[in-house]
Amino acid sequence: MATIEDIAKRINVSKGTVSKALNGASDVSAKTRKLVLNTAIELGYIRPTHKGATPRLVIFVTHMDYKHSNDFGYQIIAEFRQSALAAGCEVVVEELTDDMQRHTTYETHMIESGSTGAFFLGLSLSDPWLIQLQTTKIPTVLLDNHTKFNPYTAYIGVDNQEGMSLAISHLKELGHHKIGYLSGALGSYITQSRFTAFFQALRQNHLPDDPKQAANSYFFSECTEKHLPKLLEYGVTAIVCSHDLLAHTIMVHCQQCGLSVPEDISIIGFDDLPMCQHTCPPMTTIRQDLSQLGKSAYHALSSLMEGVAISSLLLHADLKIRQSSGPAPSIPPVKKISG
Amino acid sequence: MATIEDIAKRINVSKGTVSKALNGASDVSAKTRKLVLNTAIELGYIRPTHKGATPRLVIFVTHMDYKHSNDFGYQIIAEFRQSALAAGCEVVVEELTDDMQRHTTYETHMIESGSTGAFFLGLSLSDPWLIQLQTTKIPTVLLDNHTKFNPYTAYIGVDNQEGMSLAISHLKELGHHKIGYLSGALGSYITQSRFTAFFQALRQNHLPDDPKQAANSYFFSECTEKHLPKLLEYGVTAIVCSHDLLAHTIMVHCQQCGLSVPEDISIIGFDDLPMCQHTCPPMTTIRQDLSQLGKSAYHALSSLMEGVAISSLLLHADLKIRQSSGPAPSIPPVKKISG
Repeated sequence: MATIEDIAKRINVSKGTVSKALNGASDVSAKTRKLVLNTAIELGYIRPTHKGATPRLVIFVTHMDYKHSNDFGYQIIAEFRQSALAAGCEVVVEELTDDMQRHTTYETHMIESGSTGAFFLGLSLSDPWLIQLQTTKIPTVLLDNHTKFNPYTAYIGVDNQEGMSLAISHLKELGHHKIGYLSGALGSYITQSRFTAFFQALRQNHLPDDPKQAANSYFFSECTEKHLPKLLEYGVTAIVCSHDLLAHTIMVHCQQCGLSVPEDISIIGFDDLPMCQHTCPPMTTIRQDLSQLGKSAYHALSSLMEGVAISSLLLHADLKIRQSSGPAPSIPPVKKISG
Repeated sequence: MATIEDIAKRINVSKGTVSKALNGASDVSAKTRKLVLNTAIELGYIRPTHKGATPRLVIFVTHMDYKHSNDFGYQIIAEFRQSALAAGCEVVVEELTDDMQRHTTYETHMIESGSTGAFFLGLSLSDPWLIQLQTTKIPTVLLDNHTKFNPYTAYIGVDNQEGMSLAISHLKELGHHKIGYLSGALGSYITQSRFTAFFQALRQNHLPDDPKQAANSYFFSECTEKHLPKLLEYGVTAIVCSHDLLAHTIMVHCQQCGLSVPEDISIIGFDDLPMCQHTCPPMTTIRQDLSQLGKSAYHALSSLMEGVAISSLLLHADLKIRQSSGPAPSIPPVKKISG
């Protein structure tokens, strides 16, 4: 691992200048500062954690709600922070904007801010920093994103395959044979992974797995107006959704069309947001334990910082059976609507 | 979670009797003792860890060498033990025999010995206890075995897909096009997983993926006498093996047949046992870091004991490039032998 001395030698300045530049001192020119930072990144310099010094960890949040106790990110962040503080780390939450990603690189940002490691929530496949994470040497944990081949990054999340298997087995036991899947846009690792897991679970359960059984869109309206009618037309008696908010929208829309949930159609969500207990009817959903995710994320990051190259850490999924799933109807829902 | 009181109530004896039976006291009849243990297991009783009490962790070893510093299991156990002792746990290593598995159940054994959690090394798919691990409520970590759907068990290992991808990409860059795979018997989760990963890596690299490119056997002699000649006949210029010992055997056999490694044929192993540095030539192999596995196994077990339901924890694989892999030969090795 490169030291301040290595940087100083490479660009022929004093160690003091390098140190000042890295710490943002005002008596170093912008040009020298830039040169020092670029060299630090090129050489793979990571700010060492001195005995007694407080490691600074950053939680980057993008495309995700986290400020209120009902938000997906809230509990994850709270538990991560609690574990990190107990271990003597400083934790900072930053909202990662497109602008920020365009104007600076991940490593520059981390070195400039004196940060030791980071945890990303909600990064999508189109975020500019994602590609930089494939080669970073800064210990980095990603929720629901997998950058393979880099020993400095780890993926944490729930076992989507296990979750889908639980949901599909449950529906099969209830007599459902044609099962549909509605998903948010396939622009994130997690939506792609759940999409694949859905078809895998159908095959494991020896159920039909026609591509027509699944559809996705960024817009809820497209799911309700275009994809849902097609699935019903196809003859599905149950629909699994990639996340709870979409499942709730589909459930309400079905009810507005005159269908009863679960008598005419079963709906299953994914995540088990706090709202699922209060929907009407309460929603069956694949649960990921947000506080366990937060704890595990901190553990994965501290392992990476100690040189233990965790590639992935997945939590067991759990099916919360509530009232939005029930026995398959004798008459497919499409007949009920048209008739 | 069931308590001693629950057990006492269910079978109508005193709490003292239950406690004595669980602790193996001599003044409890064999019949009562058996009843207590069966009830404890039925109710999912787990011996609570009292504040100040030392949790007892068992490392079960089966089908695996671990006693000498060159053995696969040695370093894993050493690191697990070190992490566990540092956290105030007692660690016991037990060799798990078929006989032991037939004469007692896993939970009975754990409850009788007053153990809190276990780590299994080398369990095969035919081991009788494996099926019991699907439903146990005792926190249990398995090296290279995945019992899904049970929140009390976790799988740890190396990312086999990543490892195979690294090996196949490396061979492709060296100009190899027809690559063979030799494996130990497919009677373990790990050999099955690497077998699948091999073909997945071929497809990712847009290389031919004919089932004829792979073979497996419990016996090394069958690999050298039957499978190797067939692979050479098929035209392979490189062979990846499921583990280092097999790769070394294949390498020596190729040399005995008059082939030079890597000039005529490239050989890649899996695991990076200490011996790989000393083979002739030193062996290119997919590395799993045994000490990191040991540390991670302890972490996974302590997480399970705290109620964090880890499903899987995989470490990054690394390709150690030594001298047993080189540029693809202009003449396939089979022609060199025959002609």
